[in-house]
Amino acid sequence: MFDFTNHTNIRAPRGNRLHCKGWGQEGALRMLMNNLDPEVGERPDDLIVYGGRGRAARSWEAYDAIVRTLLELENDETLLVQSGKPVAVFRTTKAAPRVLIANANLVPQWATWEDFNRLEEMGLTMFGQMTAGSWIYIGSQGVIQGTFETLAALGRKHFQNHTLRGRLYVSAGLGGMGGAQPLAAKMLEAVALLAEVDPARIEKRLATGYLDRVSPTVEQGVQEALRAKEAGEVVSIAVPVHATELLQYLVDHQITPDVLSDQTAAHDPLVGYIPDGYDVRSAALLRAADPAEYLKRARASIARHVQLMLTLTRRGARSFDYGNNIRRVAYEAGVQDAFEIDGYVPAYIRDLFAQGKGPFRWAVLSGKPEEIYKLDRLALEMFRENEALCRWIELAGKHIQFQGLPARIAYMGYGEREAFGVRVNEMVARGELSAPVVFGRDHHDTGSVASPFRETEAMRDGSDAIGDWPILNALLNVASGAHWVSFHHGGGTGIGYSLHAGMVVVADGSADSTGRLERVLHNDSGLGVVRHADAGYELAVQTLQKNPVKTPLLGPETQPRRK
Amino acid sequence: MFDFTNHTNIRAPRGNRLHCKGWGQEGALRMLMNNLDPEVGERPDDLIVYGGRGRAARSWEAYDAIVRTLLELENDETLLVQSGKPVAVFRTTKAAPRVLIANANLVPQWATWEDFNRLEEMGLTMFGQMTAGSWIYIGSQGVIQGTFETLAALGRKHFQNHTLRGRLYVSAGLGGMGGAQPLAAKMLEAVALLAEVDPARIEKRLATGYLDRVSPTVEQGVQEALRAKEAGEVVSIAVPVHATELLQYLVDHQITPDVLSDQTAAHDPLVGYIPDGYDVRSAALLRAADPAEYLKRARASIARHVQLMLTLTRRGARSFDYGNNIRRVAYEAGVQDAFEIDGYVPAYIRDLFAQGKGPFRWAVLSGKPEEIYKLDRLALEMFRENEALCRWIELAGKHIQFQGLPARIAYMGYGEREAFGVRVNEMVARGELSAPVVFGRDHHDTGSVASPFRETEAMRDGSDAIGDWPILNALLNVASGAHWVSFHHGGGTGIGYSLHAGMVVVADGSADSTGRLERVLHNDSGLGVVRHADAGYELAVQTLQKNPVKTPLLGPETQPRRK
Ligand SMILES: NC(=O)c1ccc[n+]([C@@H]2O[C@H](COP(=O)([O-])OP(=O)(O)OC[C@H]3O[C@@H](n4cnc5c(N)ncnc54)[C@H](O)[C@@H]3O)[C@@H](O)[C@H]2O)c1
Ligand SMILES: NC(=O)c1ccc[n+]([C@@H]2O[C@H](COP(=O)([O-])OP(=O)(O)OC[C@H]3O[C@@H](n4cnc5c(N)ncnc54)[C@H](O)[C@@H]3O)[C@@H](O)[C@H]2O)c1
Repeated sequence: MFDFTNHTNIRAPRGNRLHCKGWGQEGALRMLMNNLDPEVGERPDDLIVYGGRGRAARSWEAYDAIVRTLLELENDETLLVQSGKPVAVFRTTKAAPRVLIANANLVPQWATWEDFNRLEEMGLTMFGQMTAGSWIYIGSQGVIQGTFETLAALGRKHFQNHTLRGRLYVSAGLGGMGGAQPLAAKMLEAVALLAEVDPARIEKRLATGYLDRVSPTVEQGVQEALRAKEAGEVVSIAVPVHATELLQYLVDHQITPDVLSDQTAAHDPLVGYIPDGYDVRSAALLRAADPAEYLKRARASIARHVQLMLTLTRRGARSFDYGNNIRRVAYEAGVQDAFEIDGYVPAYIRDLFAQGKGPFRWAVLSGKPEEIYKLDRLALEMFRENEALCRWIELAGKHIQFQGLPARIAYMGYGEREAFGVRVNEMVARGELSAPVVFGRDHHDTGSVASPFRETEAMRDGSDAIGDWPILNALLNVASGAHWVSFHHGGGTGIGYSLHAGMVVVADGSADSTGRLERVLHNDSGLGVVRHADAGYELAVQTLQKNPVKTPLLGPETQPRRK
Repeated sequence: MFDFTNHTNIRAPRGNRLHCKGWGQEGALRMLMNNLDPEVGERPDDLIVYGGRGRAARSWEAYDAIVRTLLELENDETLLVQSGKPVAVFRTTKAAPRVLIANANLVPQWATWEDFNRLEEMGLTMFGQMTAGSWIYIGSQGVIQGTFETLAALGRKHFQNHTLRGRLYVSAGLGGMGGAQPLAAKMLEAVALLAEVDPARIEKRLATGYLDRVSPTVEQGVQEALRAKEAGEVVSIAVPVHATELLQYLVDHQITPDVLSDQTAAHDPLVGYIPDGYDVRSAALLRAADPAEYLKRARASIARHVQLMLTLTRRGARSFDYGNNIRRVAYEAGVQDAFEIDGYVPAYIRDLFAQGKGPFRWAVLSGKPEEIYKLDRLALEMFRENEALCRWIELAGKHIQFQGLPARIAYMGYGEREAFGVRVNEMVARGELSAPVVFGRDHHDTGSVASPFRETEAMRDGSDAIGDWPILNALLNVASGAHWVSFHHGGGTGIGYSLHAGMVVVADGSADSTGRLERVLHNDSGLGVVRHADAGYELAVQTLQKNPVKTPLLGPETQPRRK
């Protein structure tokens, strides 16, 4: 008998033995546990998965109740989770989702960190981030392709090169997501130099192969990086210091990185950012003793951080905000020109979104790495003509160590996702895979998020702040039969700054799964293309011409032909 | 052939001829049209249904496209509507909703009237109010029972009486919702005196039987009201003046009403409130010419309005904010003690919500008033032991004129709704009703809204601003198979102040409808009870003891017994 009651070293069951009454429930159970696997989550003892305080459940009591409920949940029942707490089970239908999740949603006038902190303190809410509270985090791999695609697009745009060979990438933060930076930079053949105040995080990236080495001081780290750049070497180096310490050194010594970014969890200044002059431990003491003072210092430090980034930008560094809202936090702390730094979505990712491409992923419940490699081969075979995808799959197979349940991320687009999902489901049915496969995605995707300083920054029609699309996305995924669907506020850019939805479907080899995969993967990504076509992106209109959706108010060329 | 293309004098088709491919679509089509029937909506020429600028569709072009799409929509397709504009049709399942609607949702930091107005101006959004953009408005009847229940509870609490006989009720605003006040007061045997600046609205209430008479001046109106009160008469009187003019007169003449409220659309100062010194026409000119100046004057006027209400309250009037957010708007304009005025939900309605009771309603697609009376008799028979409900149904049958499709509102509770819905569906199946019946409710209901100055004001556990519940409600209603589901921001208390969901199910006599009605009406109201039990309301816990829901983290006494 598998023991589901422990709270340390949580590890999801592997293989095709069912503990729940159906694979929808079992998938949710295993992915929840996988989020808290110490190989995967950042601080599982505190239920924190990644991204500042992105949690999987509100409390251990809530976690236990979710686990118990999933183990007993019938195939026509649906569990409701309110900010990480299971609040009710209702009878729905066999075709409906098994779990519906709403995390950190607040009435807009109260959507501030101050109110959120107060309500969290009262035990009434939880920060779900994007994939933490929605149970589809897959470790640092989850963001790595996004980072890779961003840096690749940057290379093409600014250096007319498909790699970053001979370029110096400087950034900070080696947390759950930030930890992907050194590896993504390496896959693009750059030299990466990263500041991280928490030595334990550096250790974790070294252990999981995301980082090559650590230098004890800034001076030494910078020298090594410059030597490597000179020598045309490809290497990633961390320095165990505050971001501003590294940047100040570069400014003082007239060293300008080619590419500059940041991945501290600046979106959540109270929990995700360590102020100047503090280490992890002293910061924790100040945070507990005087949160207001902590916030003041963290915001001042973020302001200084962005000032330094601006100085380096003006000296020629190609800089971008990589989705942690650091520009806005600095702007609110008085840095009026913070938005001179590019947002990565309009600068590098929008074209992918317009085609329905985004961080799609799958995990094999068998636990067998070779089944991921088998699926890699399937993808290479099915999408032979998609060069970028094939290049990615090959690089990923070579560079990425698995964390927890073996998984793969791939920016598949509209049309590709459902084709792939359905084929994989057939393989499960035929026993070519030894257990079901889970398909999901980040909330950071084409049609699932409204976030004016990130995914919807500078939309062509000015619709950045329109929040209807993620809501429609969540409702449509429920109607289409995803196994679990989530809707969050907050996430990557923090409280007040984004609304987003997630979905997961389990391919268990059944005809029921085929239907769900066809509908959900098609509709989910299709809505993203429609959202971009509606906003006036030509690439989206073209995508709809190839693979039409009925769009009552767009041009006739995007409409399915009548039979 | 029915003509669906006209834009004036819109009137939904009646009877059992299907124009769409299924009754889910047909119900949505007819209820959309019914919202814009001049008998029903307030300003149908501008697509405005009620509540300031609560619209049914974003533009006439969008309206036409919705109508066309509904006429063609297949029984396994789902139409998505983004702030009143139809954006896509996707294939879902037969059991899924036919329409999914998201209106006026904004990323919270941009959830201000300023940003909303800018985005509306750009053609990117629309204010959906609660039942306007979700196509289940039924005229002034939709709010009348709420007003009745509020006044009845007030009478019991403050006057130890089950009527308001011999009491003077003073208020303002005779719009779509406000127009219910004189009739509700009359049903409770009070004398009602109401200020309304727009003579056309007074005309409409007289014509529909919601109002008894109009007096040309404040002085005359007040004298008539006082005489009626003296004489123990039951009458409602409107005066065609600004609210502050009436209140100032009362203050100056030392006349204190027994009960005092307001139903101008103060939640939307730019569109819903006429500033002091303006009439409808001069206000429209100022609004067009200088919206900022308009807002300044409207807010100043609202501040004065609430000051006058406070003066009368301190002299002994029982006053309450009836859900138009007038206290908050005044507070922001400097009236620091605005919240001395009670909110009607915590003061009078919370107990109903805790039992899953709220503004449930049905409309007969036959168009035959006698079928509503038949359903009145069914309700009286089924719920014989529910005295309050029977009293209401009898009063409603006596006093309420139908507008548009004949409809009935009744605060049914958890358990009652689905029992009633299923019985009605059987009657449709047996031909005892000549056409299908539509069941829906206001967004203003037990488990469907988060609104800290209205439905969730002063929750026992402090969870007023928690926004997860309406999201879960919308997702659950989709999973349960409502025919259309909506999610709105704004609504009754305005942009920034509320999130809420709606659902409608069509009873067409089929087994499919039976299943939908059982699940949706049960789960929707059940979630409201759970939400209140979770917040610590004993009445909700007791309700769950009678009719259990699996609630993983509530006490065992609320759990269904194991078989
Ligand atoms: N672009 C994307 O696709 C994307 C995806 C996910 C997350 N994000 C955002 O990226 C940020 C990082 O996410 P994460 O999951 O890695 O967060 P995390 O909380 O797991 O890690 C943050 C890291 O930053 C370090 N740090 C904090 N302050 C520092 C400072 N002043 N100097 C140096 N290091 C410091 C912390 O020690 C920690 O290791 C978040 O804001 C998140 O919302 C972006
Ligand atoms: N408690 C509830 O259940 C509930 C339900 C629905 C709506 N509401 C709220 O009630 C308010 C009224 O809703 P509605 O649908 O009747 O709105 P509406 O826009 O249809 O009508 C508002 C009326 O107020 C009048 N008015 C505006 N300014 C005035 C002034 N200064 N003096 C006198 N009259 C003035 C207008 O001429 C109009 O007739 C809104 O704020 C709405 O959100 C409450």
